[in-house]
Amino acid sequence: MRRTSFRVWPCSIARTVDLLGDWWTPLVLREIFFGSTRFDEIQHGLSIGRNILAARLRRLTGAGLVERRAYQQRPPRYAYHLTEKGREFFPVLMAMVRWGDRWLHGRGAPPLLLRHTQCGELTHGELVCAHCRAPLEHADVRAELPSGATPSLELRAAAVKRLRRKAAAARG
Amino acid sequence: MRRTSFRVWPCSIARTVDLLGDWWTPLVLREIFFGSTRFDEIQHGLSIGRNILAARLRRLTGAGLVERRAYQQRPPRYAYHLTEKGREFFPVLMAMVRWGDRWLHGRGAPPLLLRHTQCGELTHGELVCAHCRAPLEHADVRAELPSGATPSLELRAAAVKRLRRKAAAARG
Repeated sequence: MRRTSFRVWPCSIARTVDLLGDWWTPLVLREIFFGSTRFDEIQHGLSIGRNILAARLRRLTGAGLVERRAYQQRPPRYAYHLTEKGREFFPVLMAMVRWGDRWLHGRGAPPLLLRHTQCGELTHGELVCAHCRAPLEHADVRAELPSGATPSLELRAAAVKRLRRKAAAARG
Repeated sequence: MRRTSFRVWPCSIARTVDLLGDWWTPLVLREIFFGSTRFDEIQHGLSIGRNILAARLRRLTGAGLVERRAYQQRPPRYAYHLTEKGREFFPVLMAMVRWGDRWLHGRGAPPLLLRHTQCGELTHGELVCAHCRAPLEHADVRAELPSGATPSLELRAAAVKRLRRKAAAARG
Protein backbone atom coordinates (compact mmCIF):
# COMPACT_ATOMS: atom_id res chain seq x y z
CA MET A 1 0.00 0.00 0.00
CA ARG A 2 1.39 3.35 -0.98
CA ARG A 3 1.97 5.58 2.00
CA THR A 4 -0.18 8.70 2.02
CA SER A 5 1.96 11.77 1.47
CA PHE A 6 1.25 14.66 3.81
CA ARG A 7 3.70 16.93 2.01
CA VAL A 8 1.14 18.97 0.12
CA TRP A 9 -1.23 19.46 3.03
CA PRO A 10 -1.59 23.04 4.22
CA CYS A 11 -0.47 22.00 7.71
CA SER A 12 2.96 22.32 9.25
CA ILE A 13 2.46 19.23 11.39
CA ALA A 14 1.61 17.14 8.35
CA ARG A 15 4.55 18.51 6.38
CA THR A 16 6.90 17.93 9.29
CA VAL A 17 5.87 14.31 9.77
CA ASP A 18 6.08 13.76 6.02
CA LEU A 19 9.63 15.07 5.97
CA LEU A 20 10.72 12.92 8.90
CA GLY A 21 9.34 9.77 7.27
CA ASP A 22 9.24 7.50 10.29
CA TRP A 23 9.95 7.48 13.98
CA TRP A 24 13.56 6.41 13.56
CA THR A 25 14.30 9.87 12.26
CA PRO A 26 13.74 11.82 15.52
CA LEU A 27 15.75 9.15 17.33
CA VAL A 28 18.65 9.61 14.91
CA LEU A 29 18.38 13.35 15.57
CA ARG A 30 18.36 12.64 19.30
CA GLU A 31 21.67 10.77 19.00
CA ILE A 32 23.25 13.66 17.12
CA PHE A 33 21.91 16.16 19.70
CA PHE A 34 23.44 13.92 22.40
CA GLY A 35 26.83 14.28 20.74
CA SER A 36 27.10 11.14 18.60
CA THR A 37 28.18 12.30 15.18
CA ARG A 38 29.88 9.32 13.56
CA PHE A 39 27.94 6.64 11.74
CA ASP A 40 29.17 3.82 13.98
CA GLU A 41 28.43 5.77 17.17
CA ILE A 42 24.87 6.53 16.06
CA GLN A 43 24.38 2.93 15.02
CA HIS A 44 25.62 1.66 18.38
CA GLY A 45 23.49 4.17 20.30
CA LEU A 46 20.32 3.08 18.52
CA SER A 47 21.07 -0.61 17.85
CA ILE A 48 19.74 0.09 14.36
CA GLY A 49 20.53 -1.73 11.13
CA ARG A 50 23.20 -0.06 8.97
CA ASN A 51 20.89 0.10 5.94
CA ILE A 52 18.07 1.73 7.94
CA LEU A 53 20.45 4.23 9.50
CA ALA A 54 22.04 5.06 6.15
CA ALA A 55 18.58 5.71 4.66
CA ARG A 56 17.56 7.95 7.59
CA LEU A 57 20.81 9.92 7.39
CA ARG A 58 20.32 10.37 3.64
CA ARG A 59 16.83 11.68 4.33
CA LEU A 60 18.06 14.08 7.02
CA THR A 61 20.94 15.24 4.83
CA GLY A 62 18.70 15.65 1.79
CA ALA A 63 16.20 17.64 3.85
CA GLY A 64 18.96 19.91 5.10
CA LEU A 65 18.76 19.10 8.83
CA VAL A 66 22.12 17.37 8.90
CA GLU A 67 25.34 17.80 6.95
CA ARG A 68 28.04 15.25 6.33
CA ARG A 69 31.67 16.14 6.87
CA ALA A 70 34.69 13.94 6.19
CA TYR A 71 36.82 13.37 9.28
CA GLN A 72 39.17 10.86 7.65
CA GLN A 73 40.39 10.47 4.08
CA ARG A 74 41.69 6.88 3.74
CA PRO A 75 39.37 5.14 3.98
CA PRO A 76 36.81 7.95 3.74
CA ARG A 77 34.81 8.34 6.96
CA TYR A 78 32.10 10.86 7.67
CA ALA A 79 30.54 12.57 10.65
CA TYR A 80 27.06 14.06 10.72
CA HIS A 81 26.45 17.52 12.13
CA LEU A 82 23.25 19.49 12.70
CA THR A 83 22.58 22.48 10.48
CA GLU A 84 20.61 25.48 11.76
CA LYS A 85 17.46 23.78 10.43
CA GLY A 86 18.38 20.66 12.40
CA ARG A 87 19.30 22.53 15.59
CA GLU A 88 15.95 24.29 15.50
CA PHE A 89 14.22 20.91 15.70
CA PHE A 90 15.38 20.76 19.32
CA PRO A 91 12.09 22.11 20.78
CA VAL A 92 10.14 19.24 19.18
CA LEU A 93 12.37 16.69 20.91
CA MET A 94 12.29 18.64 24.19
CA ALA A 95 8.51 18.76 24.10
CA MET A 96 8.45 14.97 23.60
CA VAL A 97 10.89 14.50 26.48
CA ARG A 98 8.76 16.60 28.78
CA TRP A 99 5.56 14.82 27.87
CA GLY A 100 7.15 11.38 28.11
CA ASP A 101 8.81 12.20 31.44
CA ARG A 102 5.49 13.36 32.83
CA TRP A 103 3.20 10.68 31.48
CA LEU A 104 5.17 7.54 30.67
CA HIS A 105 7.34 6.87 33.72
CA GLY A 106 4.97 6.43 36.64
CA ARG A 107 6.36 7.97 39.79
CA GLY A 108 10.00 7.11 39.10
CA ALA A 109 12.70 9.55 38.09
CA PRO A 110 12.83 10.32 34.37
CA PRO A 111 15.54 8.38 32.49
CA LEU A 112 17.66 11.48 31.99
CA LEU A 113 17.81 14.76 33.86
CA LEU A 114 18.40 17.97 31.96
CA ARG A 115 20.39 20.83 33.42
CA HIS A 116 20.26 24.37 32.02
CA THR A 117 23.86 25.49 32.11
CA GLN A 118 22.88 29.18 31.91
CA CYS A 119 21.09 29.12 35.29
CA GLY A 120 22.57 25.90 36.68
CA GLU A 121 19.23 24.33 37.61
CA LEU A 122 17.51 21.14 36.52
CA THR A 123 15.06 22.11 33.85
CA HIS A 124 12.52 21.10 31.30
CA GLY A 125 11.16 23.03 28.36
CA GLU A 126 8.02 25.08 28.82
CA LEU A 127 6.05 26.55 25.97
CA VAL A 128 5.30 30.26 26.19
CA CYS A 129 3.63 32.80 23.91
CA ALA A 130 6.32 34.43 21.74
CA HIS A 131 4.58 37.77 22.28
CA CYS A 132 3.49 38.03 25.95
CA ARG A 133 5.64 35.17 27.38
CA ALA A 134 2.71 33.65 29.30
CA PRO A 135 2.48 29.85 29.22
CA LEU A 136 0.83 28.86 25.94
CA GLU A 137 -2.08 26.53 26.50
CA HIS A 138 -4.43 24.89 24.05
CA ALA A 139 -7.52 26.67 25.35
CA ASP A 140 -5.92 30.08 24.65
CA VAL A 141 -4.81 29.49 21.06
CA ARG A 142 -7.15 30.25 18.15
CA ALA A 143 -6.28 29.26 14.59
CA GLU A 144 -6.93 31.73 11.74
CA LEU A 145 -6.52 31.44 8.00
CA PRO A 146 -4.01 33.95 6.65
CA SER A 147 -5.45 36.49 4.19
CA GLY A 148 -4.59 35.45 0.67
CA ALA A 149 -4.26 31.82 1.68
CA THR A 150 -5.01 29.49 -1.20
CA PRO A 151 -5.05 25.93 0.02
CA SER A 152 -7.22 23.61 -2.04
CA LEU A 153 -10.86 24.54 -1.77
CA GLU A 154 -11.93 21.41 0.03
CA LEU A 155 -9.19 21.64 2.64
CA ARG A 156 -9.88 25.31 3.07
CA ALA A 157 -13.59 24.65 3.53
CA ALA A 158 -12.84 21.98 6.12
CA ALA A 159 -10.51 24.34 8.00
CA VAL A 160 -13.08 27.13 7.97
CA LYS A 161 -15.74 24.72 9.24
CA ARG A 162 -13.49 23.69 12.11
CA LEU A 163 -12.69 27.30 12.99
CA ARG A 164 -16.39 28.25 12.97
CA ARG A 165 -17.26 25.29 15.17
CA LYS A 166 -14.50 26.18 17.60
CA ALA A 167 -15.55 29.84 17.69
CA ALA A 168 -19.16 28.78 18.33
CA ALA A 169 -18.04 26.48 21.15
CA ALA A 170 -16.00 29.32 22.67
CA ARG A 171 -19.02 31.68 22.53
CA GLY A 172 -21.53 29.26 24.00
CA MET B 1 9.59 -7.70 9.75
CA ARG B 2 8.65 -7.02 13.34
CA ARG B 3 8.83 -3.37 14.19
CA THR B 4 11.44 -2.48 16.79
CA SER B 5 9.77 -1.50 20.05
CA PHE B 6 11.21 1.57 21.72
CA ARG B 7 8.97 1.19 24.75
CA VAL B 8 11.58 -0.19 27.10
CA TRP B 9 14.31 2.27 26.18
CA PRO B 10 15.31 4.64 28.94
CA CYS B 11 14.42 7.62 26.76
CA SER B 12 11.23 9.64 26.80
CA ILE B 13 11.47 10.39 23.09
CA ALA B 14 11.68 6.67 22.28
CA ARG B 15 8.79 5.85 24.61
CA THR B 16 6.69 8.67 23.18
CA VAL B 17 7.20 7.60 19.57
CA ASP B 18 6.52 4.01 20.54
CA LEU B 19 3.23 4.99 22.13
CA LEU B 20 2.14 7.06 19.15
CA GLY B 21 2.81 4.19 16.75
CA ASP B 22 2.87 6.07 13.50
CA TRP B 23 2.56 9.55 12.09
CA TRP B 24 -1.21 9.34 11.69
CA THR B 25 -1.51 9.56 15.46
CA PRO B 26 -0.32 13.16 15.90
CA LEU B 27 -2.54 14.15 12.97
CA VAL B 28 -5.56 12.55 14.64
CA LEU B 29 -4.65 14.50 17.78
CA ARG B 30 -4.35 17.65 15.67
CA GLU B 31 -7.92 17.19 14.43
CA ILE B 32 -9.23 16.78 17.96
CA PHE B 33 -7.25 19.87 19.10
CA PHE B 34 -8.82 21.75 16.17
CA GLY B 35 -12.26 20.88 17.49
CA SER B 36 -13.23 17.80 15.48
CA THR B 37 -14.48 15.26 17.98
CA ARG B 38 -16.78 12.93 16.04
CA PHE B 39 -15.46 9.97 14.10
CA ASP B 40 -16.88 11.17 10.77
CA GLU B 41 -15.50 14.70 11.25
CA ILE B 42 -12.02 13.43 12.02
CA GLN B 43 -12.19 11.05 9.08
CA HIS B 44 -13.26 13.84 6.73
CA GLY B 45 -10.59 16.22 8.06
CA LEU B 46 -7.83 13.70 7.43
CA SER B 47 -9.20 11.82 4.40
CA ILE B 48 -8.16 8.69 6.25
CA GLY B 49 -9.56 5.18 5.92
CA ARG B 50 -12.13 4.22 8.55
CA ASN B 51 -10.15 1.17 9.63
CA ILE B 52 -6.93 3.16 10.06
CA LEU B 53 -8.71 5.88 12.00
CA ALA B 54 -10.49 3.36 14.22
CA ALA B 55 -7.15 1.72 15.03
CA ARG B 56 -5.50 5.07 15.85
CA LEU B 57 -8.41 6.11 18.06
CA ARG B 58 -8.27 2.76 19.88
CA ARG B 59 -4.56 3.36 20.45
CA LEU B 60 -5.10 6.89 21.72
CA THR B 61 -7.99 5.78 23.93
CA GLY B 62 -6.03 2.80 25.26
CA ALA B 63 -3.05 5.02 26.03
CA GLY B 64 -5.28 7.44 27.89
CA LEU B 65 -4.84 10.53 25.68
CA VAL B 66 -8.40 10.46 24.43
CA GLU B 67 -11.68 9.33 25.92
CA ARG B 68 -14.79 8.23 24.12
CA ARG B 69 -18.17 9.63 25.10
CA ALA B 70 -21.53 8.65 23.66
CA TYR B 71 -23.38 11.59 22.15
CA GLN B 72 -26.27 9.55 20.73
CA GLN B 73 -27.89 6.31 21.89
CA ARG B 74 -29.75 4.86 18.87
CA PRO B 75 -27.72 4.08 16.93
CA PRO B 76 -24.81 4.51 19.33
CA ARG B 77 -22.46 7.31 18.24
CA TYR B 78 -19.34 8.47 19.99
CA ALA B 79 -17.23 11.59 20.23
CA TYR B 80 -13.56 11.66 21.21
CA HIS B 81 -12.29 14.15 23.76
CA LEU B 82 -8.79 14.89 25.01
CA THR B 83 -7.90 13.88 28.55
CA GLU B 84 -5.35 15.85 30.58
CA LYS B 85 -2.66 13.51 29.22
CA GLY B 86 -3.85 14.31 25.71
CA ARG B 87 -4.13 18.05 26.27
CA GLU B 88 -0.58 18.11 27.56
CA PHE B 89 0.60 16.77 24.21
CA PHE B 90 -0.17 20.22 22.78
CA PRO B 91 3.42 21.54 23.12
CA VAL B 92 4.72 18.71 20.91
CA LEU B 93 2.31 19.70 18.13
CA MET B 94 3.04 23.41 18.65
CA ALA B 95 6.76 22.77 18.39
CA MET B 96 6.18 20.90 15.11
CA VAL B 97 4.01 23.74 13.81
CA ARG B 98 6.68 26.32 14.62
CA TRP B 99 9.44 24.31 13.02
CA GLY B 100 7.38 23.50 9.92
CA ASP B 101 6.23 27.12 9.56
CA ARG B 102 9.80 28.31 9.72
CA TRP B 103 11.51 25.71 7.58
CA LEU B 104 8.99 24.11 5.22
CA HIS B 105 7.09 26.98 3.62
CA GLY B 106 9.61 29.13 1.83
CA ARG B 107 8.80 32.81 2.13
CA GLY B 108 5.03 32.40 1.99
CA ALA B 109 2.66 32.82 4.90
CA PRO B 110 2.27 29.74 7.09
CA PRO B 111 -0.87 27.71 6.35
CA LEU B 112 -2.54 28.73 9.60
CA LEU B 113 -1.99 31.69 11.89
CA LEU B 114 -2.28 31.23 15.63
CA ARG B 115 -3.63 33.93 17.90
CA HIS B 116 -3.09 33.96 21.65
CA THR B 117 -6.44 35.00 23.03
CA GLN B 118 -4.91 36.07 26.37
CA CYS B 119 -2.82 38.85 24.81
CA GLY B 120 -4.63 39.13 21.48
CA GLU B 121 -1.49 38.90 19.32
CA LEU B 122 -0.43 36.44 16.65
CA THR B 123 1.86 33.97 18.32
CA HIS B 124 3.92 30.86 18.11
CA GLY B 125 5.25 28.67 20.89
CA GLU B 126 8.71 29.38 22.26
CA LEU B 127 10.57 27.00 24.51
CA VAL B 128 11.90 28.47 27.75
CA CYS B 129 13.71 27.07 30.78
CA ALA B 130 11.11 26.11 33.39
CA HIS B 131 13.39 27.58 36.06
CA CYS B 132 14.88 30.87 34.76
CA ARG B 133 12.47 31.44 31.80
CA ALA B 134 15.31 32.18 29.36
CA PRO B 135 14.94 30.64 25.87
CA LEU B 136 16.07 27.02 26.09
CA GLU B 137 18.63 26.20 23.44
CA HIS B 138 20.42 22.99 22.66
CA ALA B 139 23.87 24.34 23.47
CA ASP B 140 22.75 25.23 27.01
CA VAL B 141 21.20 21.89 28.00
CA ARG B 142 23.31 19.15 29.57
CA ALA B 143 21.93 15.66 30.15
CA GLU B 144 22.66 13.89 33.46
CA LEU B 145 21.84 10.41 34.71
CA PRO B 146 19.62 10.51 37.80
CA SER B 147 21.15 8.97 40.91
CA GLY B 148 19.76 5.51 41.44
CA ALA B 149 18.95 5.11 37.75
CA THR B 150 19.05 1.49 36.70
CA PRO B 151 18.66 1.25 32.97
CA SER B 152 20.20 -1.84 31.45
CA LEU B 153 23.95 -1.80 31.84
CA GLU B 154 24.70 -1.51 28.17
CA LEU B 155 22.31 1.37 27.60
CA ARG B 156 23.59 3.07 30.72
CA ALA B 157 27.19 2.66 29.54
CA ALA B 158 26.28 4.14 26.17
CA ALA B 159 24.55 7.09 27.82
CA VAL B 160 27.50 7.72 30.12
CA LYS B 161 29.87 7.55 27.16
CA ARG B 162 27.82 10.13 25.31
CA LEU B 163 27.67 12.41 28.35
CA ARG B 164 31.45 12.15 28.84
CA ARG B 165 32.09 12.93 25.20
CA LYS B 166 29.79 15.92 25.33
CA ALA B 167 31.38 17.19 28.53
CA ALA B 168 34.85 16.79 26.96
CA ALA B 169 33.71 18.70 23.88
CA ALA B 170 32.33 21.47 26.09
CA ARG B 171 35.64 21.70 28.00
CA GLY B 172 37.93 21.77 25.01
